[in-house]
Amino acid sequence: MHPTTPLGALRALMQARGLDGLLVPRADAHQSEDCAPHDNKLAWLTGFTGSAGLALVLADRALLFVDGRYQVQVQHQVDTTAFAVHHLHNEPVAQWIDNHLPPGQRIGFEPMLMTNSQYEALRASHCQPVALDDDPFDAVWHDRPAAPCGVITEMPDEIAGESSADKRQRVAAALREAGVDYLAVTLPDNIAWLLNVRGSDVAMNPVPHSFLLINQQGDVEWFVAQEKLAQLAPEVTRNITLSAPGAFLTRCRACAAGNVIALDADFSPVALRFAVEQAGGSVRWQSDPITWMKALKNPVELEGYRASHREDGAAWVNFLAWLHHEAPLRDAAGDPITELEAQQKQLAFRQQRETFIEPSFNTISAAGSNAAMCHYHASPETNKPLTRSEFYLNDSGGQYVNGTTDATRTLAFGPLTAARRLHYTAVLKGFLALITLPFPNGTCGHQLDAVARRPLWELGLDFDHGTGHGVGHRMLIHEQPQRIAKKVNPWPLLPGSIMTIEPGYYLADQYGIRIENQVEVVEGAPGFCRFSTLTLIPIDLNQVETGLLSAQEKAWIDDYHQQVRDTLAPLVNSDARAWLFAATAPLRVQTGAQA
Amino acid sequence: MHPTTPLGALRALMQARGLDGLLVPRADAHQSEDCAPHDNKLAWLTGFTGSAGLALVLADRALLFVDGRYQVQVQHQVDTTAFAVHHLHNEPVAQWIDNHLPPGQRIGFEPMLMTNSQYEALRASHCQPVALDDDPFDAVWHDRPAAPCGVITEMPDEIAGESSADKRQRVAAALREAGVDYLAVTLPDNIAWLLNVRGSDVAMNPVPHSFLLINQQGDVEWFVAQEKLAQLAPEVTRNITLSAPGAFLTRCRACAAGNVIALDADFSPVALRFAVEQAGGSVRWQSDPITWMKALKNPVELEGYRASHREDGAAWVNFLAWLHHEAPLRDAAGDPITELEAQQKQLAFRQQRETFIEPSFNTISAAGSNAAMCHYHASPETNKPLTRSEFYLNDSGGQYVNGTTDATRTLAFGPLTAARRLHYTAVLKGFLALITLPFPNGTCGHQLDAVARRPLWELGLDFDHGTGHGVGHRMLIHEQPQRIAKKVNPWPLLPGSIMTIEPGYYLADQYGIRIENQVEVVEGAPGFCRFSTLTLIPIDLNQVETGLLSAQEKAWIDDYHQQVRDTLAPLVNSDARAWLFAATAPLRVQTGAQA
Repeated sequence: MHPTTPLGALRALMQARGLDGLLVPRADAHQSEDCAPHDNKLAWLTGFTGSAGLALVLADRALLFVDGRYQVQVQHQVDTTAFAVHHLHNEPVAQWIDNHLPPGQRIGFEPMLMTNSQYEALRASHCQPVALDDDPFDAVWHDRPAAPCGVITEMPDEIAGESSADKRQRVAAALREAGVDYLAVTLPDNIAWLLNVRGSDVAMNPVPHSFLLINQQGDVEWFVAQEKLAQLAPEVTRNITLSAPGAFLTRCRACAAGNVIALDADFSPVALRFAVEQAGGSVRWQSDPITWMKALKNPVELEGYRASHREDGAAWVNFLAWLHHEAPLRDAAGDPITELEAQQKQLAFRQQRETFIEPSFNTISAAGSNAAMCHYHASPETNKPLTRSEFYLNDSGGQYVNGTTDATRTLAFGPLTAARRLHYTAVLKGFLALITLPFPNGTCGHQLDAVARRPLWELGLDFDHGTGHGVGHRMLIHEQPQRIAKKVNPWPLLPGSIMTIEPGYYLADQYGIRIENQVEVVEGAPGFCRFSTLTLIPIDLNQVETGLLSAQEKAWIDDYHQQVRDTLAPLVNSDARAWLFAATAPLRVQTGAQA
Repeated sequence: MHPTTPLGALRALMQARGLDGLLVPRADAHQSEDCAPHDNKLAWLTGFTGSAGLALVLADRALLFVDGRYQVQVQHQVDTTAFAVHHLHNEPVAQWIDNHLPPGQRIGFEPMLMTNSQYEALRASHCQPVALDDDPFDAVWHDRPAAPCGVITEMPDEIAGESSADKRQRVAAALREAGVDYLAVTLPDNIAWLLNVRGSDVAMNPVPHSFLLINQQGDVEWFVAQEKLAQLAPEVTRNITLSAPGAFLTRCRACAAGNVIALDADFSPVALRFAVEQAGGSVRWQSDPITWMKALKNPVELEGYRASHREDGAAWVNFLAWLHHEAPLRDAAGDPITELEAQQKQLAFRQQRETFIEPSFNTISAAGSNAAMCHYHASPETNKPLTRSEFYLNDSGGQYVNGTTDATRTLAFGPLTAARRLHYTAVLKGFLALITLPFPNGTCGHQLDAVARRPLWELGLDFDHGTGHGVGHRMLIHEQPQRIAKKVNPWPLLPGSIMTIEPGYYLADQYGIRIENQVEVVEGAPGFCRFSTLTLIPIDLNQVETGLLSAQEKAWIDDYHQQVRDTLAPLVNSDARAWLFAATAPLRVQTGAQA
């Protein structure tokens, strides 16, 4: 076979190294949700661009494992004559190996790209896993993009709310208490939080790719490309030992001898375990303690979220006022607004805000049936018009200097069918049920998830995504560890936690509905917590069957809209103010006007 | 020290065997919830009669570990100068050993009374666990009650709904599929289900203490005291190899050589692991597959539950009609009904039902402040009067020939305070919220638990017990594995599951409220399940703030009461029928009468 394709090149490489197979995961060394082009080996190999997946290349065949979300997408992107598509969870790769390969096959893998549990699953199969101690793709991926080299900037203490020195002492105390000598940190947002810096290696992921070691005295060694530090004031790295990322494993080995090294049980590369064990050290598997410190925001961070939500709310209202005025007119005139046009206009309104930096994630601007795909992003090929007969769903947010926003509104520009109104009302009722729920201290997200689904369940419907996720502070839009979802999540929602609440409903090829607010968890009655809303954007009530709302639900909506109106009226453009007042009028006024 | 006390006797024994300590758990070899007197070593040693606990006896001191439920009770029952009381979960015994004993202490334990995870926790501590291969208590517990020898009876196929032969073939198929050679069964209800028998070793626990081995061909070896089989038709044991319980470990060892033996990960004694490993066999830790087969009831069993609930409902109505007539009169006359009298009267009404066998658990008949203790049982010393100014809570059930019942009603015989009415209404609303909830296939109890708590949470209140448990078929009142509770339970609620729904509220030293129905899980809309009620007992509406009920809640109550009325009217005593009609009248009639 002549190695003109990536697949052919990998097979030649396998042969040269005596491997029967090679695993190619969609992963970088940080287990990032978004991958830099340099790290996206799976996309290079297969063409598949989804956010999770794994290829197994064998001499005579190749397999691509993707999860349920991507079964359709993969058919469009991948040459399925070269790659047989399998389900990532129904028959995981280790199980497939046991079922279909003879024992003892030598399967290569990169231990910097694999977590410990992934490795253990592979090891429990009857293949012989072969750890590669280099990156074999450098030799065969000729037009490989350069490793990202995003500039790192300081997050000032007055916005972070706590100095890096104080954070390091908190971590050091946690290590002393746990009897751990070193903590090895590979999660980019944990490093960004600890050092009060932000990065720019991957678009809309303002965290630096790097590694870090911290010991019981709070001494920090940072393994980061020197070039990324060019714009950073020297004070930031004054008490930090700087090394190249390539020195990280060697240094872990050196630290490990006779010592206890804490590794993140879910995210650390198994290469770290190998390094520690080779050096005679012992691994303490735990959650990186920084994850939890970072998750409970301090008062300065919380005030930053609130301020950025006021700015984002004003941008939303300016956008919505424009949209509600223009969309029906343009549709009637036969020149409808498109998804991409709406998205660009919204960005322009955000850019008017002084503290806005960039979108916090890829905007979902989805009209009609496009919104039925939860992960849709508009492109020139898919760009649909916003019409008076279909929902338009917008899920977007911004990075502001002092916080991060994420919200979804589903809008209509004319009367919709009874089914659409019923489903919109059910999503709204689920949203209201959860956002108004008090819950005892120590409650976890999986205990609350059903509350947001009940109105849909009563219609025999459901939605196939989580109900809420954490949001970083000027950081990742999906922040660990808390989550509100069906799946068990052991981390309680405590005061200072930032979450989204975003139930939805999706009817394939027809429409999608989602309503999302960002909230902070605050203290409630003694022993209880509650959600306090951060998002300040009117909820479209035109499609609500108000007869299905309880008095309490109507009261919450009216209170919320009054808060939105009072807060945003001074901040929005003058030509948006009338719309804001109409959109936030009490329900009896709105439904009176409708009748 | 002269061994006149149990503690002294144990210390002498420890010295004779070279032990520094001895663990005495509240456990039998089946990890039963209720212990036979013969097995209750902890009660003999300490006086403590709670259902969970553990003593650690050392030469110079002794400790008793009990959980939060029992911190008060233990003070009444135990000589705390002899036994220092510790918290079972806050500082588990293995952690206490690490914190307070020097390393290497020889701590004796009985491996038939300890699960594998309990053993692993002990082994991870720095003591030296010493497994005792006999029961050391025989030598020192001179007035020890005999081992239970309850007669075993047949559960006819026409009531069980499936022959034992068919069940054994299903288990054998599961073993073949799992690649397991033998399954060792120690759970009494799993043995009872598999063999279609019932036992009587512990009061109100109609399951036999015994052990069982089954192989891939479905061959069964039953390790059971011969005396228990005297009344059993020979057909029942025809294809079964019978041995004495004492032969079980030896036989496990013989089976284990070169074989895979499945042990229940949560309940098997660690002695089985030792036996398998000593023989060179390998242990497959899993849930006993019988547990899940047993949990999904067949149509005949389900019809049996329904029939037994009709009988139990009739007994309840006869009792409630009598009680509602007599209680206020007797209170006014200065000769109030007492908890014990009510309990006896209720039993008499149950005994009028032809298919009634015995109570399915210790009745909770609790007036006023006694009901604030969730696990209260009336005694001559605590026996309170039923008055017109306080709630009376009754939680009771029956074993019927074809099913098992469990229900709670909270009653009042006069107007109560606004706070009591509010709390009663909140408990009722939580009960209604859960019993009316449809949920997708695969949903687990921990996902639904909050639904029953929300009305209490909205008042800043909660209750400190699970919301629902499984109920065996003519078997244990608390049946594994499903559970509706805050704690994660990985077993989904599927059609054929039998559960209780029993939210409550308890104000210490004042009152307790609980409303409990037993339900079966049935298919709902496509892809969904729902609860169908089994319990047929009017819900006391006199204390409900009906203004706080939604139209849907009222409709459910009226529908339910109509079902109760229609089903039970032909079954109750003639003098109870008028009360039944009044108690099940539609809400607008009842509240009209009240107003």
